[in-house]
Amino acid sequence: MRKIWIVYLLLIACFAFYVLNYRAQSQISDQRNAGGLRGSMDEKYVMVTFQMGIDYWKSGLKGFEDAAQALNVSVEYRGATQRDVHEQRTVLEQVIAKKPAGIAVSAMHAAELTATINKAVEAGIPVVLFDSDAPGSRAHSFLGTNNYAAGARAADKMAELTGGRGKLAIITVPDQQNHLDRTQGFADTIAAEFPELSVVVVKNGKGDPLFSRQAAEEILLSFPDVAGIFTTEANGGIGVAEAVREHSPSAAGPRIVSFDTDKGTLDLVKSGDIDATMAQGTWNMGYWAMQFLFSLNHGMNDTRNPGSLRVPQQVDTGITVVTRQNVNDYYAK
Amino acid sequence: MRKIWIVYLLLIACFAFYVLNYRAQSQISDQRNAGGLRGSMDEKYVMVTFQMGIDYWKSGLKGFEDAAQALNVSVEYRGATQRDVHEQRTVLEQVIAKKPAGIAVSAMHAAELTATINKAVEAGIPVVLFDSDAPGSRAHSFLGTNNYAAGARAADKMAELTGGRGKLAIITVPDQQNHLDRTQGFADTIAAEFPELSVVVVKNGKGDPLFSRQAAEEILLSFPDVAGIFTTEANGGIGVAEAVREHSPSAAGPRIVSFDTDKGTLDLVKSGDIDATMAQGTWNMGYWAMQFLFSLNHGMNDTRNPGSLRVPQQVDTGITVVTRQNVNDYYAK
Repeated sequence: MRKIWIVYLLLIACFAFYVLNYRAQSQISDQRNAGGLRGSMDEKYVMVTFQMGIDYWKSGLKGFEDAAQALNVSVEYRGATQRDVHEQRTVLEQVIAKKPAGIAVSAMHAAELTATINKAVEAGIPVVLFDSDAPGSRAHSFLGTNNYAAGARAADKMAELTGGRGKLAIITVPDQQNHLDRTQGFADTIAAEFPELSVVVVKNGKGDPLFSRQAAEEILLSFPDVAGIFTTEANGGIGVAEAVREHSPSAAGPRIVSFDTDKGTLDLVKSGDIDATMAQGTWNMGYWAMQFLFSLNHGMNDTRNPGSLRVPQQVDTGITVVTRQNVNDYYAK
Repeated sequence: MRKIWIVYLLLIACFAFYVLNYRAQSQISDQRNAGGLRGSMDEKYVMVTFQMGIDYWKSGLKGFEDAAQALNVSVEYRGATQRDVHEQRTVLEQVIAKKPAGIAVSAMHAAELTATINKAVEAGIPVVLFDSDAPGSRAHSFLGTNNYAAGARAADKMAELTGGRGKLAIITVPDQQNHLDRTQGFADTIAAEFPELSVVVVKNGKGDPLFSRQAAEEILLSFPDVAGIFTTEANGGIGVAEAVREHSPSAAGPRIVSFDTDKGTLDLVKSGDIDATMAQGTWNMGYWAMQFLFSLNHGMNDTRNPGSLRVPQQVDTGITVVTRQNVNDYYAK
């Protein structure tokens, strides 16, 4: 009698064990079947930049990592150590050889990198460009700032800061297309929308604080009543702020609108030496570059949408205006 | 002695039960912690268009649904039954009242819908615009075709079809900005890149097959040697194809490049009456509109990226060229 009891109990325990184990397994597979965009940690996506280690890339890499974490995939960050296109090409060749799940490239020089980018695409590796485009390449998408629109936004801010009246100067880098576009967007907007403002001079600051400082000093000498100076890149902004601080230590000097959000520029916005700086949507570039690469990698054999494109060709990641009020939000975390 | 055995067995069974249950729970929570972009079926995202039911929206809705399925969220499709902006506004008001997780809107008329779109954004509902923008609104993003670039692509195709030599005509809708942009992109590209091609006439087809047919007949009378006709919208293309078929039944007539991929146009591409048509990235619009809304809905309280933008402001969803070779891929599935 008691032996039978024991056998019953063992059978019941086995059955309970079986039921529980089944329930656990089916709950897990329910989770899987219920969808969700989720990769595996074996999928490695690589970001390739030039001049690694500078502040500028931090937020883009953060976006890339945030998206990778959300999608449960791996990332690697590679790049040329300097502004050297040959080094960037070599790095890109090495990355391609490892057949990653996707590559996000900021192209230092379009023509010099196009063949290598195309090689990756032809090998079936999804490639998107961010920040700096290579317009002739076969990359699937470009995500970056619309520089003309950014210049126009800077003009609006300058008009607000100067009360819409007076002489304006621009310090830029005339041999780089992105800086020409920012200059044009600024100048066109001032001419079209603010009849009492005029751009009286455009100078070459060479992307260097010393040259930009000198250019600002020349402007302050030639136009002592200049109401505002727009610099199309960050190093220039720092030089201009120095020149203006020395020339007119009171708050009556020209308003300064700069570009980008490296620590030096943000510190000068905080101290009030620079009135505003234009922040590119760099987190956006990285975050959506990863999303596009993931979509391409997982959709290569997708027949649901054969006739159309899988990711947008051109993405304007946007501009926001940084002033003393919101500057703390922009320091790298 | 045997009573103790039974107690032992019961204790062991309880312990096994506990261990298994714990393991099951922790496996499920591991899955959750391991990431993956995944919403819940309670999250409802709504697409709002005008003139519901036309072919044009099918592929965009498919993209919206594909993304929703991937993200495990729900969708609803609403819209005005006709080209009536007041009806679209009413529908949008009704949708807002239900507080959905996000709204994708194709704005029939920017100025008439801006206040309602802003009301949704102010109520904390993510809103993106697709296909037709409302540039003054507070919507978080716009996804659509860069119409100027689309016109330029059409010009490249026309140059290829005509051997880069001869007179060209354009039939468009001059009171709509998207059609003006397509016309300008086409004309600028021909002027800049193809010295032996020239646009000799631009006519108003009023977006109607009959008016476009008449316009094409006038062109064929005035310029019997016209080498190609570009129509910036689909109804026009159908009218032009009829006029050309009657006027020059042989294959020697002018080449026709049209726009969009409704069934009527695709049939004429298949039969060879239309040589090429420009396909907008409508699946892309819907797919990424959903992804952006999901990201906004889930990132509203995200403090990782406070200073920057969460989704791109402006997205060019791209253009592909449809010819007899690939036309079968473009029929709605």
